[in-house]
Amino acid sequence: MPATQHPVELRPIGVVESPLGDRRDAPRQGDEGAPDAWLVLDDTFVEALDGLVVGAQIIVITWFDRAVRYVLRTHPRNDPGRPEQGVFTTRSPDRPNPIGLHEVTVLAIEGARVRVNHMDALDGTPVLDIKPVLPGIDAR
Amino acid sequence: MPATQHPVELRPIGVVESPLGDRRDAPRQGDEGAPDAWLVLDDTFVEALDGLVVGAQIIVITWFDRAVRYVLRTHPRNDPGRPEQGVFTTRSPDRPNPIGLHEVTVLAIEGARVRVNHMDALDGTPVLDIKPVLPGIDAR
Repeated sequence: MPATQHPVELRPIGVVESPLGDRRDAPRQGDEGAPDAWLVLDDTFVEALDGLVVGAQIIVITWFDRAVRYVLRTHPRNDPGRPEQGVFTTRSPDRPNPIGLHEVTVLAIEGARVRVNHMDALDGTPVLDIKPVLPGIDAR
Repeated sequence: MPATQHPVELRPIGVVESPLGDRRDAPRQGDEGAPDAWLVLDDTFVEALDGLVVGAQIIVITWFDRAVRYVLRTHPRNDPGRPEQGVFTTRSPDRPNPIGLHEVTVLAIEGARVRVNHMDALDGTPVLDIKPVLPGIDAR
């Protein structure tokens, strides 16, 4: 393995506060009935939110800490009726690096707490990053 | 800091092989002239690519290993004429967890090597994950 593939260490910037307590409660994707949730960031990161506004479309990057990391093949959409595919062709949380991408809208901002809609992540899920959706990049 | 915010360790699945050798060569976003590149995955992950086809739209998740992680505010689009904003409202690679998102098209697949277009990541950048673009989720 090349030297560039040394492990990298990420420090979560906060956690998701959500009514979803269990994987059985979670929808398969954020637009399939996922609830509103709070992104509770560490106070150190308030400054990094400067310029964020209610109504903004953002991409929340999470770490699916309850996922299984050794899975390389799975049934798409968790449907046993479909043939297995490689996990890199599915959005399954079970994958070598279980990173979640959530495109959501900002509903409220209170200091280091950001309320968002349709957040398909369990309560306590670590948040790694927040990025703006760029028209023409993500929405093309 | 809550217990859920312990550091998380990611193991890169491969690296980017690109003609971009230096941050000064890199475009600000992938659609501003970024070159084609190879994603060179570790052979262990060939199985996880099963079902990937030429022409597929994918999201490549990278680790900007040459980014600066202590930056909380920056000039958007690296333009000193614009007022500083929080990094979570910009796509700057300099941020607490420098994760890159790249929406690209698959041009070729050769074993564990995947050729993609418009890849705005430097040569040697670690690759963390590959996901399909889901119409109606990412493209809405």
